[in-house]
Amino acid sequence: MDFSSKLLEQAVAEMSQLPGIGKRTALRLVLHLLKQPATQTQQLAEALLDLKANIKLCKNCHNISDTEICEICANPNRTRELVCVVEDIRDVMAIENTGQYRGLYHVLGGKISPMDGIGPSQLTIKSLIDKVKEGEVKEIIFALSSTLEGDTTNFYIFRQLEGIEIKTSTIARGISVGDELEYADEVTLGRSITNRIPFESSLKS
Amino acid sequence: MDFSSKLLEQAVAEMSQLPGIGKRTALRLVLHLLKQPATQTQQLAEALLDLKANIKLCKNCHNISDTEICEICANPNRTRELVCVVEDIRDVMAIENTGQYRGLYHVLGGKISPMDGIGPSQLTIKSLIDKVKEGEVKEIIFALSSTLEGDTTNFYIFRQLEGIEIKTSTIARGISVGDELEYADEVTLGRSITNRIPFESSLKS
Repeated sequence: MDFSSKLLEQAVAEMSQLPGIGKRTALRLVLHLLKQPATQTQQLAEALLDLKANIKLCKNCHNISDTEICEICANPNRTRELVCVVEDIRDVMAIENTGQYRGLYHVLGGKISPMDGIGPSQLTIKSLIDKVKEGEVKEIIFALSSTLEGDTTNFYIFRQLEGIEIKTSTIARGISVGDELEYADEVTLGRSITNRIPFESSLKS
Repeated sequence: MDFSSKLLEQAVAEMSQLPGIGKRTALRLVLHLLKQPATQTQQLAEALLDLKANIKLCKNCHNISDTEICEICANPNRTRELVCVVEDIRDVMAIENTGQYRGLYHVLGGKISPMDGIGPSQLTIKSLIDKVKEGEVKEIIFALSSTLEGDTTNFYIFRQLEGIEIKTSTIARGISVGDELEYADEVTLGRSITNRIPFESSLKS
């Protein structure tokens, strides 16, 4: 694209570094900011810089936090015996929204993915194993998305836990509540039959 | 959404003020920045602040420019007799990309749209009329998109020019080059028949 302004070109170039934002979208966003009062641009820039400079990762679960220990880990009403292994803060938010989980989390920061150059050492796996070895944790719940990378990561952690006495579980896969069986994919439907649960249990939730 | 961090919440709130960026997309963009080196966030913030603080509008055509008079208006090889009326810099860029236009532009900064509270006084219409009155311009080419707002704006300017001797024209509407007739909408196809041109002229371009 041939911009009439180096300033505009630079802003568009930086904006289009964001994932999923092409040059055209970046131009639209930047032109929108130009039409708005200067305070909006300032507040956006400050919020991003402030976040990047001051964000912390919880020392216990590695979730994004404003404090050394995040609110969830600091909550005395949550059981320390359950640890749910997730990829990032979005998974934590999704599970928290259900209101069904009273344990803690362990945020890996990604999944093992040789294609993207992400190995076990870039994730917080060692910290998880160390935490388990301390003995307070009774059950690890794997809640990574069920992709090749997710399954690989689960299995890697599972192997690391060998020899340590701890219960491991994975969240149930099955047909979404409200979905029609005929449109479900075969793998999901197969798993939901294999992992069927006593009818009485389904009445509780 | 329930964020575990005020800093994160603030950054997502600011990012989601941008048009077409919802809370989920904003979170994805902000988490991406968090994973990147701090320089990327700094460069983005600086580019936006620098643009907003230092951008100029060309005194002649009101296009975005780093200088008082933009490159196009300052170019002695371009004819001052033709002025193409467009909405914003994206239209200028699109027309410049064709390499077919050697006149100047006049950037309105929007279209008349009572629904959005945009009246003629918020656009650079008066400046266009004043420019025409100076006498150097021989033809005004309307190139706004042919929507209700575009047509209203064209007509408003056309009425303002009444009594001034000047040629006005509008860019041709018709079937896109390479498109099949059967898929064209009726209005466009109708216009392209009504505004047919001598066959010899079509051989030139």
